[in-house]
Amino acid sequence: MDLILTNARLVSMQPKNSGYQPTDPVNIVIRDGKIVAISSAAASNETVSSDSRYIDCSGKLVTPGLIDCHTHLIYAGNRANEFEMRLNGVPYQTIAAQGGGILATVKATRQASEEQLIELALPRLDGLLRSGVTSIEIKSGYGLTLHDELKMLRAAQALQQHRRIKVTTTLLAAHALPPEFAGRADAYIEHICQTIIPTVAEQQLASSVDVFCESVGFNLQQTERVFACAREYGLQVKGHTEQLSNLGGSALTARYQGLSADHIEYLDQAGVAALAQSGTVATLLPGAFYFLRETQKPPVELLRKYGVPMALASDINPGTSPFADLTLMMNMGCTLFGLTPEETLRGVTQHAARALGFAKTRGQIATGFDADLAIWNIDHPADLSYQVGVPRLHARIVDGVLCND
Amino acid sequence: MDLILTNARLVSMQPKNSGYQPTDPVNIVIRDGKIVAISSAAASNETVSSDSRYIDCSGKLVTPGLIDCHTHLIYAGNRANEFEMRLNGVPYQTIAAQGGGILATVKATRQASEEQLIELALPRLDGLLRSGVTSIEIKSGYGLTLHDELKMLRAAQALQQHRRIKVTTTLLAAHALPPEFAGRADAYIEHICQTIIPTVAEQQLASSVDVFCESVGFNLQQTERVFACAREYGLQVKGHTEQLSNLGGSALTARYQGLSADHIEYLDQAGVAALAQSGTVATLLPGAFYFLRETQKPPVELLRKYGVPMALASDINPGTSPFADLTLMMNMGCTLFGLTPEETLRGVTQHAARALGFAKTRGQIATGFDADLAIWNIDHPADLSYQVGVPRLHARIVDGVLCND
Ligand SMILES: [Zn+2]
Ligand SMILES: [Zn+2]
Repeated sequence: MDLILTNARLVSMQPKNSGYQPTDPVNIVIRDGKIVAISSAAASNETVSSDSRYIDCSGKLVTPGLIDCHTHLIYAGNRANEFEMRLNGVPYQTIAAQGGGILATVKATRQASEEQLIELALPRLDGLLRSGVTSIEIKSGYGLTLHDELKMLRAAQALQQHRRIKVTTTLLAAHALPPEFAGRADAYIEHICQTIIPTVAEQQLASSVDVFCESVGFNLQQTERVFACAREYGLQVKGHTEQLSNLGGSALTARYQGLSADHIEYLDQAGVAALAQSGTVATLLPGAFYFLRETQKPPVELLRKYGVPMALASDINPGTSPFADLTLMMNMGCTLFGLTPEETLRGVTQHAARALGFAKTRGQIATGFDADLAIWNIDHPADLSYQVGVPRLHARIVDGVLCND
Repeated sequence: MDLILTNARLVSMQPKNSGYQPTDPVNIVIRDGKIVAISSAAASNETVSSDSRYIDCSGKLVTPGLIDCHTHLIYAGNRANEFEMRLNGVPYQTIAAQGGGILATVKATRQASEEQLIELALPRLDGLLRSGVTSIEIKSGYGLTLHDELKMLRAAQALQQHRRIKVTTTLLAAHALPPEFAGRADAYIEHICQTIIPTVAEQQLASSVDVFCESVGFNLQQTERVFACAREYGLQVKGHTEQLSNLGGSALTARYQGLSADHIEYLDQAGVAALAQSGTVATLLPGAFYFLRETQKPPVELLRKYGVPMALASDINPGTSPFADLTLMMNMGCTLFGLTPEETLRGVTQHAARALGFAKTRGQIATGFDADLAIWNIDHPADLSYQVGVPRLHARIVDGVLCND
């Protein structure tokens, strides 16, 4: 049975300028979860079979379902206490000495069961769904053992049994050095390459591998070891790169045909050129920039000049971006980074799809693409970046199924 | 019939430190919209009559309902286009020449009917309710004629017929100079004092009067003329003061026993001392600070030192703060202004109540206070300032009536 959306004003996000301008009302014909036809309202009767189901969009704007291409949605524990201590003037060292920071999340995540991780993630996921998200990337990285990394990835995939959402998982075992490997970072990298990546690949628990390449994370050589191993096992790569300093991680990611280089506040012109050459997406994460009170902005002008596709994501995590609203990130992308509303919308549709390896099937409204859509009570696509907190999502459609959540 | 909340962990926000620390589970007895008793769970059976209605809070945190004490919720028109033009590099002068800025909102608001204004405000209001708001202040100020200011105030009051919410209205005719009075600001002030204030007072359409005291608004003398007139008619006063420069508007507000001085980024020590002496609340508006990319922060240290009560509000408006989420403002209060989570929560409960003239009846959970409550799925009150976008409001209670909106 076909699903037909009638009277829909499309913001198709097809990669030409007019893809951002709402169309006159049209019909979208959906079959087997795919968009099979887009026709002007007048021609609708000819194209559809009689037993179709119709949804009248009443002239509402319809965009591709939003894609959050960088999240750490799965974790246990609560770091509101750290947030509060910091604001009450407690020094970072004291907080760290009390077991705060990322290792607090690692400890709580290791102690949680897979079911508990799912339970804890659902409210955060619901926040993102409310902002129109139909696809989400979720990273591991708070387990840091084979057992706990697998548990996180299984929990992430299992969210698809609880909500209408498409989850893409990324192994981020190289997120931080686990306490058991203190002082032996290279040994941990070997453990990742010899045990964790092979198991994840075999069990198909992730389609890509990520590394936190930073002075407080892993160095360039360690990052390359992980990337090379990931590619050997047929997994894609992406990096947390140039967030706090310029180590060259983005260029390395480009050299390995990475899907995306993420954060990149400190990326220089050579790095931008490298991304452009490999077609790697630059994923901007304004939530962490805001929450950490950073002042060095990503090189937006250079990225434009070199034509690097810019994605935008929530980076939702307990330490640096506790934000479950992708439209808030769009507002921050405009307000803090000077992106245009078209750039932010492309960043959570067309370019976010590419950052997940789905450039040909998601992030645009076009024949042959997945029927992942968001129907909005707004007048103009810029509204999505402009206002925050106003309920305006009418419905989501995921693989052709209507969700009135 | 009494309503009894059982098993509620209170964050009472009573004005002592322990008012911020969640209590052990207790019962709250509500009668005729007021809190009549708070008792330990064990003692509950003795205090209540047999035909009471019970709600089991299951150990959830219960705070006073949040109070948004500074909003411009009522307006027509959409300024997403301006936002977009600005981000596409169109100079402010060009936007203004095309009729942009506050006068665009004035034009659209004048053209809208009272019913249309209500309809347009409801989604924005729903955003705020979703963040736990039970009381809201709403200003006029986009009509700038007697007819249109009255229309705005009636629309604001009428929201109470559409949602469970307590609305306090403020006349802000002195928001901007209407085109009809171009070059004749003093004449407009006289019109406000001789016609608008008397009519608003007679029709009981507002309980206070506000002035935008700024180089781009009205000067000190004009502000004082309005304040004096308001007091004559038995209305309270408050000011938009020291947002962009230090004109002395806050001290003037204090001299007229003002309820609050709002924005105050440029307030100096003498101004802070004046607020302290008069007991005027300092209302901080981080949304506008963020949206305008301001860098001068309000003098939080001085306000603490002088013991000035700090409120926090959304300032929701189409030009400088398009944000319908009071917990986002709490996060910005912490992240951008360095407030503690206790200060932000006091800023939207205890001190916000005072900014509306309800210090004795709202903003705290205490015997004799209004039964305006928010029940939360959170572990600690700091969560409200820490995370954004995660649905966590379990229910609101307004005047003793449960709202599962
Ligand atoms: Zn991240
Ligand atoms: Zn205001």
